[in-house]
Amino acid sequence: MSKGVLAVVSGFSGAGKGTVMKRLMESHDNYALSVSVTTREPREGEADGREYFFRTNEEVEEMIRRDQLLEHAKYVDHYYGTPRKYVEDMLAEGKDVILEIEIQGALQIKDKLPEAVLVFITPPSMEELKKRLIGRGSEEPEVIASRLSRASEEAEGIEKYDYILVNDRIDDCAETLHRIISSEHLRTQRNIEFINRIQEESHIFKKGE
Amino acid sequence: MSKGVLAVVSGFSGAGKGTVMKRLMESHDNYALSVSVTTREPREGEADGREYFFRTNEEVEEMIRRDQLLEHAKYVDHYYGTPRKYVEDMLAEGKDVILEIEIQGALQIKDKLPEAVLVFITPPSMEELKKRLIGRGSEEPEVIASRLSRASEEAEGIEKYDYILVNDRIDDCAETLHRIISSEHLRTQRNIEFINRIQEESHIFKKGE
Repeated sequence: MSKGVLAVVSGFSGAGKGTVMKRLMESHDNYALSVSVTTREPREGEADGREYFFRTNEEVEEMIRRDQLLEHAKYVDHYYGTPRKYVEDMLAEGKDVILEIEIQGALQIKDKLPEAVLVFITPPSMEELKKRLIGRGSEEPEVIASRLSRASEEAEGIEKYDYILVNDRIDDCAETLHRIISSEHLRTQRNIEFINRIQEESHIFKKGE
Repeated sequence: MSKGVLAVVSGFSGAGKGTVMKRLMESHDNYALSVSVTTREPREGEADGREYFFRTNEEVEEMIRRDQLLEHAKYVDHYYGTPRKYVEDMLAEGKDVILEIEIQGALQIKDKLPEAVLVFITPPSMEELKKRLIGRGSEEPEVIASRLSRASEEAEGIEKYDYILVNDRIDDCAETLHRIISSEHLRTQRNIEFINRIQEESHIFKKGE
């Protein structure tokens, strides 16, 4: 059994990332979602270790000092981060770990784990993104404007990702993401052990031996 | 429509490359096999432009001087090479081009076209390779020994490939190769035009505009 692949997935708010992830999890059992650590209070129905690992400020700052977070950020006075141990344990078990985060976090991770695969999910066009945000019907115009403005900033970083995935139909998109991750398993750098075995086995066939 | 992907496929003699390629071509219509140029005489039933482009020594040497071959080698006094124009024309048409060559040629190509995808096909073990070679029943023991010895040299270069593909069952192997090439289409470097369009479209949503 080979080690799992760490896939970092980002995308515009409204691109349908969440639904794609959900579909991927439902249709394949080799995936695990990463659980983040946070200093914010648990909400009704949230359980420690399921939605988040709930920790104190001091605990999270200690984790940062000890390089126990693969990435972290502070929003509205609260830390959010990705525990290295949890991710590495699941990868070692052979699970493919999916991490849904924003670009700053994605780049921090690529820095610490260059073998991570960065995937950016986008709708086919910005016009379509706008339509989808308006179509939800639940958002105020200012919220939509702010999300679109945010999207225009996020768009600047797309080239830093490894793959770009157009979310046209949810099922296709989830399946394509699955194909990308399956193919990544076959990269030579991820199969050095197997390659070394083949090389060793082949030595007995060398001329003159 | 995006440009095609150039996939260079190598593997031990006896790994079943040829059969895998054939299956891939039969089951998907987006592929084209590259046609090599050679200075050897056409054999019975071979047509210029189908099995090979048949050219004179002078013509091929002129192509080499003008950098019109993506790779070339000389075997038993005859040149064999991959015409750049033929490959680039098919890629421009959106075809995924498959090139079945050995490691020296594969590395020459990666050098000239870094976006080429290098895939190495191997049986699950060298023992299995030996079994398959013997199982054919048509080869003399010395021929088998020489192929295995050759395989042991080829094995040294596997790390230089992008992907390693274990040929356990032909159908699975052809389908996995198809997945690798499909996924490669989604690499951000291959989609710069699309990404630029998304970025431009998003400018109108920038705050204050």
